[in-house]
Amino acid sequence: MAHLCQDVRILGVDRQGAFADYVVLPEQNIWKLDPRIPEEIAAIHDPLGNAVHTALAGPVAGLQFAVFGCGPIGCFAVGVLKAAGASWIAAVDKNPLRLELAARMGADLVLDVTKDEVVKEILARTDGRGVDGMLEMSGHPDAFRDGFEVLANGGRVSLLGIPSKPLEIDVAKEVIFRGAVVQGINGRIIFDTWYRMEALLLSGKLDVKPVITHVLGWSDFEEAVNLQRSGKAGKIVLKRDHP
Amino acid sequence: MAHLCQDVRILGVDRQGAFADYVVLPEQNIWKLDPRIPEEIAAIHDPLGNAVHTALAGPVAGLQFAVFGCGPIGCFAVGVLKAAGASWIAAVDKNPLRLELAARMGADLVLDVTKDEVVKEILARTDGRGVDGMLEMSGHPDAFRDGFEVLANGGRVSLLGIPSKPLEIDVAKEVIFRGAVVQGINGRIIFDTWYRMEALLLSGKLDVKPVITHVLGWSDFEEAVNLQRSGKAGKIVLKRDHP
Amino acid sequence: MAHLCQDVRILGVDRQGAFADYVVLPEQNIWKLDPRIPEEIAAIHDPLGNAVHTALAGPVAGLQFAVFGCGPIGCFAVGVLKAAGASWIAAVDKNPLRLELAARMGADLVLDVTKDEVVKEILARTDGRGVDGMLEMSGHPDAFRDGFEVLANGGRVSLLGIPSKPLEIDVAKEVIFRGAVVQGINGRIIFDTWYRMEALLLSGKLDVKPVITHVLGWSDFEEAVNLQRSGKAGKIVLKRDHP
Amino acid sequence: MAHLCQDVRILGVDRQGAFADYVVLPEQNIWKLDPRIPEEIAAIHDPLGNAVHTALAGPVAGLQFAVFGCGPIGCFAVGVLKAAGASWIAAVDKNPLRLELAARMGADLVLDVTKDEVVKEILARTDGRGVDGMLEMSGHPDAFRDGFEVLANGGRVSLLGIPSKPLEIDVAKEVIFRGAVVQGINGRIIFDTWYRMEALLLSGKLDVKPVITHVLGWSDFEEAVNLQRSGKAGKIVLKRDHP
Repeated sequence: MAHLCQDVRILGVDRQGAFADYVVLPEQNIWKLDPRIPEEIAAIHDPLGNAVHTALAGPVAGLQFAVFGCGPIGCFAVGVLKAAGASWIAAVDKNPLRLELAARMGADLVLDVTKDEVVKEILARTDGRGVDGMLEMSGHPDAFRDGFEVLANGGRVSLLGIPSKPLEIDVAKEVIFRGAVVQGINGRIIFDTWYRMEALLLSGKLDVKPVITHVLGWSDFEEAVNLQRSGKAGKIVLKRDHP
Repeated sequence: MAHLCQDVRILGVDRQGAFADYVVLPEQNIWKLDPRIPEEIAAIHDPLGNAVHTALAGPVAGLQFAVFGCGPIGCFAVGVLKAAGASWIAAVDKNPLRLELAARMGADLVLDVTKDEVVKEILARTDGRGVDGMLEMSGHPDAFRDGFEVLANGGRVSLLGIPSKPLEIDVAKEVIFRGAVVQGINGRIIFDTWYRMEALLLSGKLDVKPVITHVLGWSDFEEAVNLQRSGKAGKIVLKRDHP
Repeated sequence: MAHLCQDVRILGVDRQGAFADYVVLPEQNIWKLDPRIPEEIAAIHDPLGNAVHTALAGPVAGLQFAVFGCGPIGCFAVGVLKAAGASWIAAVDKNPLRLELAARMGADLVLDVTKDEVVKEILARTDGRGVDGMLEMSGHPDAFRDGFEVLANGGRVSLLGIPSKPLEIDVAKEVIFRGAVVQGINGRIIFDTWYRMEALLLSGKLDVKPVITHVLGWSDFEEAVNLQRSGKAGKIVLKRDHP
Repeated sequence: MAHLCQDVRILGVDRQGAFADYVVLPEQNIWKLDPRIPEEIAAIHDPLGNAVHTALAGPVAGLQFAVFGCGPIGCFAVGVLKAAGASWIAAVDKNPLRLELAARMGADLVLDVTKDEVVKEILARTDGRGVDGMLEMSGHPDAFRDGFEVLANGGRVSLLGIPSKPLEIDVAKEVIFRGAVVQGINGRIIFDTWYRMEALLLSGKLDVKPVITHVLGWSDFEEAVNLQRSGKAGKIVLKRDHP
């Protein structure tokens, strides 16, 4: 719409970012954190906001979903969909730890792309009809291909994962004849996303702790980065005062 | 909109109804029941559909709600809101049994209009801000008055309960300055309501059994009607083959 | 929703306003006027914004409308509806000058409440079906009564006019059985309203000059106020440099 | 959503079609034509319905658009956008006759892909911001490429043209970072599309006659098909009783 910023500058992407000691922010973008939210959860509000925004970008209750990519944002999204009344959620990844986290966040079916026939399994579990919504959180070309294949007519596709290069898409079959709605998701809604996220967290409807697999000290950043790269971690939080 | 029927004839209201041995229906209105849904639940699909349609007529996840009127439809609506991720739900009635049922369906706060200060309590529990959505299921004038009083700016009001006579409403204060959206809810969405209702039931996200306080035999209809009138029942189901 | 201000302070209503020599505004609320917009039109952007926001608060193209109240905002709204493709517009008032202005802004039918049978006429011209949308710009109790009477099932009601006291409304008949959606309209959408308003003005789709019946000098404010009170004016603009 | 048909069978595509002497249709799909609509216009209601559905699939008034592909449906869409208050419309094709028809239907700028720098011209005329909505009516790969290039952040893309093969799309840049919403458009909305289309036609807001370049006799079908193939016609109507 007309009111979206035409000149976004994302902190940490378009300008120097949040690992700095101090950072200057536009006053009207600031959200005051509820003191009941623990520090670890506060630290991951940025990606969690992406997950909330993506999952709630259309109706959820009583609908079936597939989430492609179970990094932290994908796992958060599974939790948000679950909290918002999704009737069934499939989660897809290639990393067993991530699939385990997705299951703990509420996925009804987890599929390992290295072993499972993703499209076949999802269609079998949805009476051949496919899912009402697909969240793309991986950026991987195969996820786009499979994700459209398992989408019901009129379904919603919410894209957050960033593909590294252009993709080949069978637009006629996947988007047009399907009557699909494909949303590019960027950022969060100020302040709707924050308001609803806080309420989901404080009410206990959404518990994201399973995704935080490690809490380390501030000086352990090297270990943290290596862990993250190894794929053997969900979200890693570094704390200044960690023992 | 243009595609709504301008000449509705409701079965049991505008024409002879469903207690008949046989009934003629327009073919395209028929929804085939999933065989996994038990008969008792099938029997209450009509009011349950109203509750699903009303509760899901706007965003729910991460939002706060007040439901006025805890008859069966009000109690169902509490359950649907809960399943759909409402962060907090207040339920209001004057009948202790109904309030108990509302609590069992997931209300976080139940208020008895004969004893509690409804507006004050709800505002106190929502930081003075009020609820994001108000569902009116009683038709009682006081519910309209209190319901608007506890509504946050920009809130949604979904009206299903039928007031028996015209009401006095402070439109300027309650609707306009509040930026409220007030929806008259009538019927269900074919077939979106049925599809999502079935999915909520089959997935176990929504359990409406607490509202069915009695299952009686077909010939016990007189006892059933008396029970219903006494206010000592939630939903009563009559079964043909009841022992 | 959650992102609406819960503590609005309107300039000229809740705090000292725009007749002052200087005024302090929140920077993020400022809209830079396109230099091609003439000063007279710039001067009436505030009420024009209300009209744009109200008229465009739902679908318009190919739909039929009734506008109750033909003060400047009502007349602007007629023009916006027309520009946005309304297929038919009835305008209702008691002041002949205002009805004439409404007709010049594009109303297909103007009705004088002191002479015409408003409900009967509108229903007759809409095949007994009524209008798809009703904009209430007068705040008058009769307009609320007649406005709902001429609304088609599923119609939209957008309320901007401020009634001076509570109104009696037959909620069951007018809102619930009709499946109506009633919106309290307050303010404008930042910046969607401004963006679209500017585009309508600059493209020539919307011409609001007929509503500006007088342009006077800055020192003629007393004459202007008297004219406005007499009902013999549309919008009056005072110019500093007026000869 | 759930209420979309999962097993569509389009007349003339999935089953034998409308050139037959008689055709069997589902009763509930029938729309009774207003007798004031002339036969020639009635004959083109099918593609016109696609254009209305596509153009009105999002907000239009006060927004800027680009239509890629100026076959009859593209030209109709230009007319619908114009009637619905689009502030500016660019139309793109390679066929001079079609571009002329688009201009007659209301396009503010027509661009010939064989001669004009489409992206550069559209960006120049929209202050570098791009259009709020893009309608793809050609199915041509270049239109997809250019169409996304000229889309403003948060813009709407409505796809009706059927690409003959998979396309390469830079999803990250074109859809995600842009926050675009891409809709696959299929069929029409029963009966919202018909209702609004009829109202636009009868009110004179929409005049589609310029697109009907030829009216021939029933037996001239061979000439008609050749004309259509030659690209020297807009819409050709065959009449049984043509002299």
